Amino acid sequence: MVEPSAGNGLLLGPTLATLDEESGYGLIEDGALAWRDGRIVYAGPRATMPHEFALIASPVETDGLVTPGLIDCHTHAVFAGDRAGEFELRLQGASYEEIARTGGGILSTVRAVRAASENELLEASLPRVRDLIADGVTTLEIKSGYGLDFDNERKMLRVARQLGEQLGITVRTTYLAAHALPGEYAGRADDYIDAVIEWLPRLHAEGLVDAVDAFCEGIGFSPAQTRRVFEAARALGLPVKLHADQLSDLGGAALAAEFGGLSADHIEHTSDAGIRAMAASGTVAVLLPGAFHVLRETKLPPLDALREHGVPMAVATDCNPGTSPLRSLRQAMQLATVHFRLTPEESLRGATVHAARALGLTDRGVLRAGQRADFVLWQIAQPAELCYWLGGRLARSVYANGRIIA
Amino acid sequence: MVEPSAGNGLLLGPTLATLDEESGYGLIEDGALAWRDGRIVYAGPRATMPHEFALIASPVETDGLVTPGLIDCHTHAVFAGDRAGEFELRLQGASYEEIARTGGGILSTVRAVRAASENELLEASLPRVRDLIADGVTTLEIKSGYGLDFDNERKMLRVARQLGEQLGITVRTTYLAAHALPGEYAGRADDYIDAVIEWLPRLHAEGLVDAVDAFCEGIGFSPAQTRRVFEAARALGLPVKLHADQLSDLGGAALAAEFGGLSADHIEHTSDAGIRAMAASGTVAVLLPGAFHVLRETKLPPLDALREHGVPMAVATDCNPGTSPLRSLRQAMQLATVHFRLTPEESLRGATVHAARALGLTDRGVLRAGQRADFVLWQIAQPAELCYWLGGRLARSVYANGRIIA
Ligand SMILES: [Zn+2]
Ligand SMILES: [Zn+2]
Repeated sequence: MVEPSAGNGLLLGPTLATLDEESGYGLIEDGALAWRDGRIVYAGPRATMPHEFALIASPVETDGLVTPGLIDCHTHAVFAGDRAGEFELRLQGASYEEIARTGGGILSTVRAVRAASENELLEASLPRVRDLIADGVTTLEIKSGYGLDFDNERKMLRVARQLGEQLGITVRTTYLAAHALPGEYAGRADDYIDAVIEWLPRLHAEGLVDAVDAFCEGIGFSPAQTRRVFEAARALGLPVKLHADQLSDLGGAALAAEFGGLSADHIEHTSDAGIRAMAASGTVAVLLPGAFHVLRETKLPPLDALREHGVPMAVATDCNPGTSPLRSLRQAMQLATVHFRLTPEESLRGATVHAARALGLTDRGVLRAGQRADFVLWQIAQPAELCYWLGGRLARSVYANGRIIA
Repeated sequence: MVEPSAGNGLLLGPTLATLDEESGYGLIEDGALAWRDGRIVYAGPRATMPHEFALIASPVETDGLVTPGLIDCHTHAVFAGDRAGEFELRLQGASYEEIARTGGGILSTVRAVRAASENELLEASLPRVRDLIADGVTTLEIKSGYGLDFDNERKMLRVARQLGEQLGITVRTTYLAAHALPGEYAGRADDYIDAVIEWLPRLHAEGLVDAVDAFCEGIGFSPAQTRRVFEAARALGLPVKLHADQLSDLGGAALAAEFGGLSADHIEHTSDAGIRAMAASGTVAVLLPGAFHVLRETKLPPLDALREHGVPMAVATDCNPGTSPLRSLRQAMQLATVHFRLTPEESLRGATVHAARALGLTDRGVLRAGQRADFVLWQIAQPAELCYWLGGRLARSVYANGRIIA
């Protein structure tokens, strides 16, 4: 297959899954996809394509399936020091206490991130993000939250930006300094929140922050502390999202909704009232089946209630070294079908249309004229295969901004 | 990295996981691996490598981890017509009856295989097997069993052989005509078994059969019918293996053991007596976590009893379109840790040492002088990462017979 000239191109013949309708895949057989300067100008049947688009570029005849580029709207993909050793200890029967004594847990990742230079952190993160892209990701959210001091949160966010530039994808950064309490603030969580709030405008002024997140949980930060962080975000005009109600119902989803949050994520324990609040505010539910799988959780998110109230559901990898070492959004989609019984269509919509919304992006997630030319040509016949196969490489070519990036 | 000259080579510096001891990974840091004419001549510390091996080839300095090539000892990787549509119908809430009415189930795969030419079947199977190789597989078992008549079983086995030749890996073929009852034999299972027994020596004479398998189950064939197939195999000197006790305890594992079987596979419902019989006969337990995952099974194989009686446990993909659409043995290893609580070491041993034994092969599965130069150079630091990461490409280079094949 010939690489199209930069940013322009024309594919003829594939099936398109446009997702450009309220429900269904929006399938178009024997389709045509034309793009110019990184924007889609036509996505429809080949037979009815206006003649002008035939001149955009040398047409490439292909079979296969084209979907919008996948959007991974919740990751902690920038880190150093994997935790495979801890994973192994757990399977050998070690208790959480024993693992803590060996220096495991999130604070071991914090130590590794703090010890890494900016370049080392970039080098450690590149292979994972390359793997995500190879399996179809063209837009990626990356959170800070393993630095937990100004310089190291800044380092993480700078690395996230560099990943986007080096790899040709869109990276949306999220400031998650309120992820865990660093050792130097032991017993002084409110003081730490003061610091988190003080760092935010400085990092925002450097252009490093697209959104603000917190870990609102008994073992994390309280709703009152989370509210303070959200107020600081609102003062800067930054959107919020929240790690909400994963282990217990603290009303996190409702809190995110109160601030017009982009998303409430995890939400295994969210009450019906929380779901109503999300529906009213248009807050997306981000489902994270990776941690559910690895930790062998049994408490399902309230899927029926989400569907009933029309809350859009996104699916993300939650890529992180402790609970969700996923290097493929397609595998998260597979796990969402197995563990959460999402249909393949819900999973794909959750990794495209609804994931775009969870990032506040309106220029991607469907195949439609005017949208960014972010899409994937898969060597499969039907969209359900994206969730059906475990492992393997199904993407033939991944396009971002109209250029092949994998 | 420079490709070594054909069949000879020398890697200096990686960590080796030789698996060449009763327990443990057999880790050697700053190792050296030398091979000549497709055979390992040295696997040990770099510091103590005899000087003669330094001259085998230009040494390649590398970091990373080297393990034996992965061995997938139970697959149905040759098929046409995936069943993603059926997977989707199930998730949309269709009952098994409704799916059967749409023509789903194993017989839909039989129809697709029969309709495909030998070349079409090869082309359909190549991408899957390439994916398995890219994730570290260098030896692959492939079963017939979707042809269910002489010509089509033969076609499947011929395609399996061609896959091995085209891709440079070892393929071990297994005759599984006793997989399901084809429509033309409805109500005449014993007559079908007569045919299965009649076809076997003819296919064996063509060099197409390395072992014989059957599906012994209430919805498959009875122990008495299985016994007849096994007797036919024994008459030809062919080893047997069995799909045993997956859905109910019919004494399948004990039957396989009685015939000195290479392996009993699935064995979720095997009794303690069956396990004792396997231990006595040296029959390997092949665990198949893919189907367990996809079907959301809850009945675990008797893992503690297998460990207690010292039955070697292998792990395989069971790659098949109905219940285990896995394109990666590493993902099966991951599922084995999550669902079966195997340790990463048990999983890796299950996909190397014990998998070799399940195929009756003694020349591979460990890194040791004299063994085949089938190995994988992974871009990871420790073996547990093979089971820890979901998705992604961790293999930097895959070697079979001393040559890079992926
Ligand atoms: Zn998270
Ligand atoms: Zn099988």
